[in-house]
Amino acid sequence: MIAKEQIADQFRALQLAICEGLEDLDQGGSFQEDPWTLHTGGGGKTRVILGHHIEKGGVNFSAVWGPASDKLQKMLGKQGDTFFATGVSIVLHARSPHVPIIHMNVRYFEMGDDIWWFGGGIDVTPHYINSDQAKSFHQLMKDTCDKTDSSFYLKFKSWADDYFYLKHRQETRGIGGIFFDRLSTDEQDISKDQLFNFVMDVGNAFLPAYQIFFTPNFEKPVTDHEKEWQLYRRGRYAEFNLVWDRGTRFGLETGGRTESILMSLPPECIWQYNRDIPADSPEGKSQALLKKGIDWL
Amino acid sequence: MIAKEQIADQFRALQLAICEGLEDLDQGGSFQEDPWTLHTGGGGKTRVILGHHIEKGGVNFSAVWGPASDKLQKMLGKQGDTFFATGVSIVLHARSPHVPIIHMNVRYFEMGDDIWWFGGGIDVTPHYINSDQAKSFHQLMKDTCDKTDSSFYLKFKSWADDYFYLKHRQETRGIGGIFFDRLSTDEQDISKDQLFNFVMDVGNAFLPAYQIFFTPNFEKPVTDHEKEWQLYRRGRYAEFNLVWDRGTRFGLETGGRTESILMSLPPECIWQYNRDIPADSPEGKSQALLKKGIDWL
Repeated sequence: MIAKEQIADQFRALQLAICEGLEDLDQGGSFQEDPWTLHTGGGGKTRVILGHHIEKGGVNFSAVWGPASDKLQKMLGKQGDTFFATGVSIVLHARSPHVPIIHMNVRYFEMGDDIWWFGGGIDVTPHYINSDQAKSFHQLMKDTCDKTDSSFYLKFKSWADDYFYLKHRQETRGIGGIFFDRLSTDEQDISKDQLFNFVMDVGNAFLPAYQIFFTPNFEKPVTDHEKEWQLYRRGRYAEFNLVWDRGTRFGLETGGRTESILMSLPPECIWQYNRDIPADSPEGKSQALLKKGIDWL
Repeated sequence: MIAKEQIADQFRALQLAICEGLEDLDQGGSFQEDPWTLHTGGGGKTRVILGHHIEKGGVNFSAVWGPASDKLQKMLGKQGDTFFATGVSIVLHARSPHVPIIHMNVRYFEMGDDIWWFGGGIDVTPHYINSDQAKSFHQLMKDTCDKTDSSFYLKFKSWADDYFYLKHRQETRGIGGIFFDRLSTDEQDISKDQLFNFVMDVGNAFLPAYQIFFTPNFEKPVTDHEKEWQLYRRGRYAEFNLVWDRGTRFGLETGGRTESILMSLPPECIWQYNRDIPADSPEGKSQALLKKGIDWL
């Protein structure tokens, strides 16, 4: 059975492989690395690109451990003396409004001797939704899930719809993807190694997923109107991350490294009061697709 | 003893008087008004200016009522069948980085027959801190408080330091001001009418307070560097409002009118990973003053 150190090693390698792939796509920028440590144990490497086509991208790796605080145990409703957490987390904001914002996360958590789980997912936030590309992306997510368990895709797709949801706007963050948390062997006929392989498959699906949207779109001409819409939609991204995202809020409330957590925020955004979005405009048509339960396949 | 309808009337008049004063200062823009209703009772008028010197400003009035939900009663730790809430709330983002962001709120809340309180405050978030102007502002806050109770200023100044605080940045939102909540007659030798007069004094201090910062600064020359710093600091304002501000979060979580609540967000802002802020630069000197407990007088 895979040990936590091996999981962390594989995640670290995943971070580097993804960064290399993104530098190739970007054709100009390169990642800067900031190592950091946590006072209770471990640390991370935050890698940031301010690139040519990728306006701002962050690829975080961390592996941290320490005594499990009362607050953590209470929050999880479980007991354990120590915790260990490792993960890779990514958000990319491309320069072009025709390239979606993309997010990926894989993580592993342990507490005490008996408690462990995996979590993660990939989701996509296009400024302009292209149904064909959305379909290809969801097909890739389904294929990635099906390799391990044919029940995963529908379950995790629906979980993503629920998780990446702005309640105060009654809209999804984008076209969703997959999301899963506290994935363990408790109720499933599946081994820890199989779950780890699944999580690595998700991690390895990130670059192909991004290419579905990046390659056909990054060189498309851009109007001022499209650029403005991008800045406006990025405001919603900031709202989701700061108001609803449990990972972000947990990190900020428990003294995580702020600059690494908020790396996900857009490089630039605007808020406009009561913006008029005509229903038959490209913006209105994309906006109308920000809802749960769409079968993209 | 003043009745809730009278309080709402006075708040409504305060909103209009402040809007008139701001249109005079702006020398070009005018407020647009959006009336809205709450399904349980009452409603509000959201007034927004996209002005000449005031890039984006919102002045909200609301008076709402309805049955007190279990959630509300639980949150307040008090019981009552119905609630009534009225208030005025303002955030202004000036075009010039030399003019601070300013916030003012006055509010009155009632539940059932026995529970009522006032809340409110004014606080200022300069992009560049000028100690003389900060002192004049705090003197005005002290004078406003002293008219009613000589203990108020120190108590409410310290409350503002604690409330307008970004824990994840370990910095205050700005130079503070005054903040108070659940102000009632329970523990004080003071009448409800006196408290209402105090709250109206705070409301009426808003325009003079803004003028302390606006008048000497709105026409100052602006460099690109100063403009960029303003956009960066506005990001912190968005962080505070979306992550920490209890009023904003309560509104978003309980189905308040999103566009009125998020009117406070900046028209435009930027996030930069790990921005370097040299300690001896004007930006660094302002940043160093973002801490609790400064005696501006």
